[in-house]
Amino acid sequence: MSILIKNVELKGKSVDILTDGERITEIAPDLKVEAEHVIDKRHLAVIPSFYNTHTHAAMSLLRGVADDLHLMEWLEKHIWPLEAKMTDKDIYAGSKLSILEMIKSGTTFFNDMYWHPEVTIKAAKEMGVRASIGLTLLDGAGENGSKETVDRNFHILKEECNSTISLTIAPHAIYTVSEENLIWAKEFADKNDLMLHIHLAETETEVEGCIEKTGHRPVHYLEKIGFLGKNVIAAHNVWLEADEKDILNKREVKINHNPVSNMKLGVGNTFDYSAFKGVTLGTDGASSNNNLDMSEEMKIAALLQKHVSADPTRLPAREAFDMASMNGAHAFGYDAGRIKEGMLADMLLIDLRNPCMVPGLNVISDLVYAANGNSVDTTICNGKVLMEGRVVENEEKIREAAIAAARELIN
Amino acid sequence: MSILIKNVELKGKSVDILTDGERITEIAPDLKVEAEHVIDKRHLAVIPSFYNTHTHAAMSLLRGVADDLHLMEWLEKHIWPLEAKMTDKDIYAGSKLSILEMIKSGTTFFNDMYWHPEVTIKAAKEMGVRASIGLTLLDGAGENGSKETVDRNFHILKEECNSTISLTIAPHAIYTVSEENLIWAKEFADKNDLMLHIHLAETETEVEGCIEKTGHRPVHYLEKIGFLGKNVIAAHNVWLEADEKDILNKREVKINHNPVSNMKLGVGNTFDYSAFKGVTLGTDGASSNNNLDMSEEMKIAALLQKHVSADPTRLPAREAFDMASMNGAHAFGYDAGRIKEGMLADMLLIDLRNPCMVPGLNVISDLVYAANGNSVDTTICNGKVLMEGRVVENEEKIREAAIAAARELIN
Repeated sequence: MSILIKNVELKGKSVDILTDGERITEIAPDLKVEAEHVIDKRHLAVIPSFYNTHTHAAMSLLRGVADDLHLMEWLEKHIWPLEAKMTDKDIYAGSKLSILEMIKSGTTFFNDMYWHPEVTIKAAKEMGVRASIGLTLLDGAGENGSKETVDRNFHILKEECNSTISLTIAPHAIYTVSEENLIWAKEFADKNDLMLHIHLAETETEVEGCIEKTGHRPVHYLEKIGFLGKNVIAAHNVWLEADEKDILNKREVKINHNPVSNMKLGVGNTFDYSAFKGVTLGTDGASSNNNLDMSEEMKIAALLQKHVSADPTRLPAREAFDMASMNGAHAFGYDAGRIKEGMLADMLLIDLRNPCMVPGLNVISDLVYAANGNSVDTTICNGKVLMEGRVVENEEKIREAAIAAARELIN
Repeated sequence: MSILIKNVELKGKSVDILTDGERITEIAPDLKVEAEHVIDKRHLAVIPSFYNTHTHAAMSLLRGVADDLHLMEWLEKHIWPLEAKMTDKDIYAGSKLSILEMIKSGTTFFNDMYWHPEVTIKAAKEMGVRASIGLTLLDGAGENGSKETVDRNFHILKEECNSTISLTIAPHAIYTVSEENLIWAKEFADKNDLMLHIHLAETETEVEGCIEKTGHRPVHYLEKIGFLGKNVIAAHNVWLEADEKDILNKREVKINHNPVSNMKLGVGNTFDYSAFKGVTLGTDGASSNNNLDMSEEMKIAALLQKHVSADPTRLPAREAFDMASMNGAHAFGYDAGRIKEGMLADMLLIDLRNPCMVPGLNVISDLVYAANGNSVDTTICNGKVLMEGRVVENEEKIREAAIAAARELIN
C-alpha cells in the first residue's frame, strides 16, 4: 500500500512524506501525489520507530505476579512454576498483549527468546510488527529445549520467514546450555545464516559459575569454543572485564543493554556503555521491567550512565535515541532508523499536543527525557499503519484474552 | 459538590465511593445515594493522588532548552540568562503548563520554589490543585530575592491561603543565602506558622563550599544556627554523612528525594533512602527531569535504590507508592494518601484497559513499575473533578500560551 503523511514535523520543518510498499519514497513540502491512505493532522512530528533487541514477550502475562525479590527466589518460587504451566495458548495470549503494548508505545521490532516460537510468530504476523524469534536451547527444559526440537522447529518455521519475520538460534546462557550444545548452536546458525541470541554476564553469580565450570570468564570461554562472531547478539553484558569487552568488539558481537531490568533485579554492576559502538536497547521481559516502553528505557539508560559516572554529559539524548531505534535496526540488518527517502517505512507520528512535548524546543530531548510511549499517535511498520490515533485493531479482544489466560494460570 | 463513583476497583473489590465537599464520606458496594456528579465506567481503579514535594513549576517553559551539560555550564550559559528574561507573564504560562501536566499525570499538590509567587498561586487556584508556594530568598537576585520582598509578599499573599493554597518561606540554599537571612527566614516562618523550603546537600561542590564558608558541613551548619525543625522541608539530601542524617531525623525535618533530577545532573552520590522515615518524592523542575510525572519518579526511585545496593528487595513498590502519595500529603499536613471514609478526596481513577495495566495481577506493582502518568483517567482534588476521561478544561489554550511565551523567550 501507499501512505501520504501531510504536514508533519521533521527536524523542525513541515513536510509531506510518501511511502510506497515497504519504503519511504518521497519527502518534500507540499507533495502533489495521491496515496491509498492519507494522514493529515498538523500536530504531529515524525521519528523512526523503536527496535527492542531483547524480550521475552509472552512474560507480560506474568506482569506484577512477583516483584522486589532476590533473583533466585523470584525465579524458583514464582516465575518458573508458572512458566512450567504455560501452554502455547498462554504464550500466544501473552505475545499478543506484549505486541499490543509495543505498537502503542512505538516499537515495531522485537528480538525474542521464549518457548513455542510458532505462536509468537503467528502473533507478530497478525499484528504486523517485525520480530526475530528465538529457537531456545536450554538443557534443563528437556525435549522442549533440546537441539532436536530447535532443528525440527527451524525446518518447520523457516517457511514463515520473510521481510518482517526471522529466526534466531537462542542458547539461553552459558550456565544453562552444555558446551556441546553451544558449539552445535554456533555451527547450526552459521550454516543456516541465522543470528544467535544469548544472555551474557548478567550477574556476578553467573561469572563465578562459568569460572568454576570452565576455568574461564564468560567471554573468554565463548571465544575459546569459537562461539563469538558478528551474528551473535549478546544480552546484558554487565559483568565484563576490559579484555572481555575488547574481544566482543573484535568479534563484532552485537551488544544489547537492558538498564531497567538490570536495575530492578539489582544485578550489582553497571553496563559500560562507553566500551561499545552501536549499542542496542531492550526492555527484557515484562516480569523484570515491568513494561515494554522504549521511551522509558531510553531515559533510564541515559540517567543510569550519568549517575554512575557523575557526568551529566554521558549518553546524551541523541545517542540514547539512536540506541533505541537505528542501532537496533542495523544490528538486525534492517535499513531503518532514519526518516529518509529509500529507507524502510518504520516510523512513528508523535502527538506534539501532549503537555510533556510542550513547548517543543527540542523534539529529541522531549522524546528521551519528557515523553512516554503514550505520546505515539501513529505507528507504521514496513509501510503499513498498525495504529492511528492510538487505535489498534482488536485491542479489547487481546486484553480480555490475556486477562483470562493469566487468571487461569495463577489460580 | 458531591461525587458518586460507581463500580470502581479498590484493593481488588468493586465498590462505590461518595464524596461530599472536600472529603470521602462513604465507601461501600452498591451505594443507594444521589450526587451532583456521577462517574460510572467499570474499567477504573481508585488510588490516592500524587503529592510532588519539590518543583520549580514555571521551568517547564524551558523544557529541552539545554540538556546533557555540566551543572554550572547548564545554569550559567542557558538557564540563568533565560530566567533573567522571564516576566510574570512567562511564569504564569509555565506554571499553567506544569499544572496541566500534573493533572494529566495524577498530581494534585506541588511544593514550589520560584519567582512571582502571585502568578503561580493564580494558576494553581484556576486549575484547582493544591500548592505550597515558596517566597524565595536568594541574595544574588537583588530586590526580588530580598527579605523585604518576602515580607511584603507574605502580607499580600496570606489572604490567598486556604485549604488548598499555602505559603512557604524558601531560602534557596546555604550557598545562595547569607546566615543573617537564613536566621531571619527561620524566625519569620516560626512566627507565622509557615514551612521552610530549602535545597540541601545536592552536590559535593555545595558541601565543600559550605565547609569553606562556615567551617561546617551543611546540616551541622544549619543545626548550629538553629534553622532545623519539623517545619523544614529539605530537598535532595544527597551528600550527607551519617551524623547529619541523625540530626535531620532528630529535628524531624521533612525529607524530599528527587531521583531523576539527581541522576540527570550527575550529582555523583545516591540519596540514602534507608536512613529516613516518611521520605517524600519530587520531580524538581522540568529543566532537569524533564517532566513532572510522579509515576515515572516512583519507578526510578525504586530502581535506583535496588541498583546501588545490589538488592532487589529495597524500596518495594508499596513504599515507592507511599513516598509519592501519602508521605507527601502528611509532610504538608494533609489528611490524604489513603482511600478511606473521612479522608480528603484527593484521588485518581486509573484506566485498567491500558495494556501496561493488563493482566492486572497487582495494581500497586502495575502503577509503580509498568504504568506511566497517562494511565490516569480521572483526577480529583479536594472533592472536585479536575480531569475526567483525560480531558482538562482549556488544555489547548494553556498549550498555545506556553508555546508562544517560550518562543518569545528563546528568540
